[in-house]
Amino acid sequence: MIRTVEWHDGAVVLLDQRLLPWREVYRVYRSYPALARAIRQMVVRGAPAIGVTAAYGIALGMQPVRRGADTAFQRICAAFAGSRPTAVNLFWAIERMQRVYAAVRNRPLDEIKTRLLEEARAIHQEDIEANRKLGTYGAELLPNPVRILTHCNAGALATAGYGTALGIVRAAKELGKTVRVFATETRPFLQGARLTCWELLHDGITPTLITDNMAGDLMRRGEVDCVIVGADRIAANGDVANKIGTYSLAVLAKTHGIPFYVAAPISTVDFTCPSGAKIPIEQRSPEEVTHLAGKRIAPRGVQVLNPAFDVTPQRYVTAIVTERGVLRPPFASSLRALAFAGQARRIESVHPPKSVKAAVRLRAK
Amino acid sequence: MIRTVEWHDGAVVLLDQRLLPWREVYRVYRSYPALARAIRQMVVRGAPAIGVTAAYGIALGMQPVRRGADTAFQRICAAFAGSRPTAVNLFWAIERMQRVYAAVRNRPLDEIKTRLLEEARAIHQEDIEANRKLGTYGAELLPNPVRILTHCNAGALATAGYGTALGIVRAAKELGKTVRVFATETRPFLQGARLTCWELLHDGITPTLITDNMAGDLMRRGEVDCVIVGADRIAANGDVANKIGTYSLAVLAKTHGIPFYVAAPISTVDFTCPSGAKIPIEQRSPEEVTHLAGKRIAPRGVQVLNPAFDVTPQRYVTAIVTERGVLRPPFASSLRALAFAGQARRIESVHPPKSVKAAVRLRAK
Repeated sequence: MIRTVEWHDGAVVLLDQRLLPWREVYRVYRSYPALARAIRQMVVRGAPAIGVTAAYGIALGMQPVRRGADTAFQRICAAFAGSRPTAVNLFWAIERMQRVYAAVRNRPLDEIKTRLLEEARAIHQEDIEANRKLGTYGAELLPNPVRILTHCNAGALATAGYGTALGIVRAAKELGKTVRVFATETRPFLQGARLTCWELLHDGITPTLITDNMAGDLMRRGEVDCVIVGADRIAANGDVANKIGTYSLAVLAKTHGIPFYVAAPISTVDFTCPSGAKIPIEQRSPEEVTHLAGKRIAPRGVQVLNPAFDVTPQRYVTAIVTERGVLRPPFASSLRALAFAGQARRIESVHPPKSVKAAVRLRAK
Repeated sequence: MIRTVEWHDGAVVLLDQRLLPWREVYRVYRSYPALARAIRQMVVRGAPAIGVTAAYGIALGMQPVRRGADTAFQRICAAFAGSRPTAVNLFWAIERMQRVYAAVRNRPLDEIKTRLLEEARAIHQEDIEANRKLGTYGAELLPNPVRILTHCNAGALATAGYGTALGIVRAAKELGKTVRVFATETRPFLQGARLTCWELLHDGITPTLITDNMAGDLMRRGEVDCVIVGADRIAANGDVANKIGTYSLAVLAKTHGIPFYVAAPISTVDFTCPSGAKIPIEQRSPEEVTHLAGKRIAPRGVQVLNPAFDVTPQRYVTAIVTERGVLRPPFASSLRALAFAGQARRIESVHPPKSVKAAVRLRAK
């Protein structure tokens, strides 16, 4: 079991993903500003993982508070909200913590702290369960044998454990399917070469590593059965923000008639965001492009673009695999249905109408 | 003026492109096996440049020969023919040297050596002239201002000087056009980041460097007016073998309605090769992918693919820009016409028929 983020002995422990695959280093965070900085510097990355980390971080930040809880809580939430802009799971986790805080803020401080930590633990646990469920739904979609191309790292390292895209890989293996994984190296930060390869080898799966620009050729040769990626934010119309390069893969998949699946927990859906055009895209430092593993690879004086994400319009997405089932186009309706089904599920007495059932394909547990 | 390959004082001098942009090192080769090894190890690379290098290499190899000229010549040619498989300019240059040798093989050895060196110098000089001409033809195609995306390095470093794709950039500047160049870094060997950026900065043009996987996003945002790449081999039907990743860019360009131009001297056309399916694709060492600038970036135990080239089917190519004019689809006919016009030009008395004229658009000098 890969331990991406953990609460341990009053501190948050992160596996430093910047050092993989060279070294497996766990860093202990006892203050929230250091933890928010760790998110910004990508010690931990992956939309679900930074959501869980921020939730723990808010619980962590509240631990030493003796008075002025409201002000402290706002300051702590703001620190995490400002750490990275694109992954909506971060804001989703902060909002969940805010709702808990709003419900208990008049209770004794110790109870507030306990409840916040409980909520963070719940978010953590629910993320793992969501991954396992969506993994199973996704695995059922795949032929056997199957050759999957994945981009970046949407694995245990990007989540609280198990993974989204790689959760589907794991679940397919558990179902007895023969799975081959092509991992794009994912420049500039090399999440594919460094993290996906490390994680799959850790689980006894041997990935085939390719550079990002080999994907089209591989598809043209008929070597890819489907593309599965994660997501950092899914707009209400189904547009998907994910690691830079995802859009190119989606276009190539469509050109070659290859299914393009997005695997993401519902916490990745931003129902307030009408389309991909409204998703803020983080621009990161030029040094990530001009340098590699600390070594300069481009001459001084070049200009550099470094958007961390791109937007894949919903028309390129074959299906969105969530913990509640497999969503099919038109995503504007299937996502709306999902939101409705979510409410239905919570009150546990209203069955979703047939049209919703069709769109969401709720499964018996 | 960038000096990629030169004959100097009885030796061949190469700018070591593996060390750019960090160090500008010129290596002197006095034996042909060392020079053939230098081609294999990519001290020099780029289809036209390795053609010129092989031609000089054959002249170099013959210099110490005192007897058994025929055997020596065959052995030397075989060494260069075995250095790299995909770029056809290499074989084209060897064949030119073979034709000269066949014509003078019964002459005194000193005359043979002189004639071979003269032919190599002619190939060198003609390549520069071809680049300048195709640069002008290509530049006329471009709007003003223009934002060009280029892949790998099809510049002075890939040719005897001036460049093919970058020759068009240079010619457009000389025509007074405002040119912005996006250079893909071109993993795994980083010819874009290391060589194209170095070369353009050397000429006072500031390129914008992107990772290979950013190209689709950039096109979707409307930031690219055209794609211009070089070629390692063009089949008789117009299919183009070029640096891995070229095909992905061609698909993305077509999806976004962006012209996709291939810039190559006629020596790159293999009239004996019916289609891209017949072009041999070099597979290079896995270490180029798992390592970067000497540092391992992927864990031990991964599988790796490393095709150095891919094939872009002719239907994705808007035009092929040659030193004889701009070829348009259907390329099977425009290339055939080019071959015919080539004969016509050589005997200097037959004007190509109108249909050929239309296809090849021969220009008045």
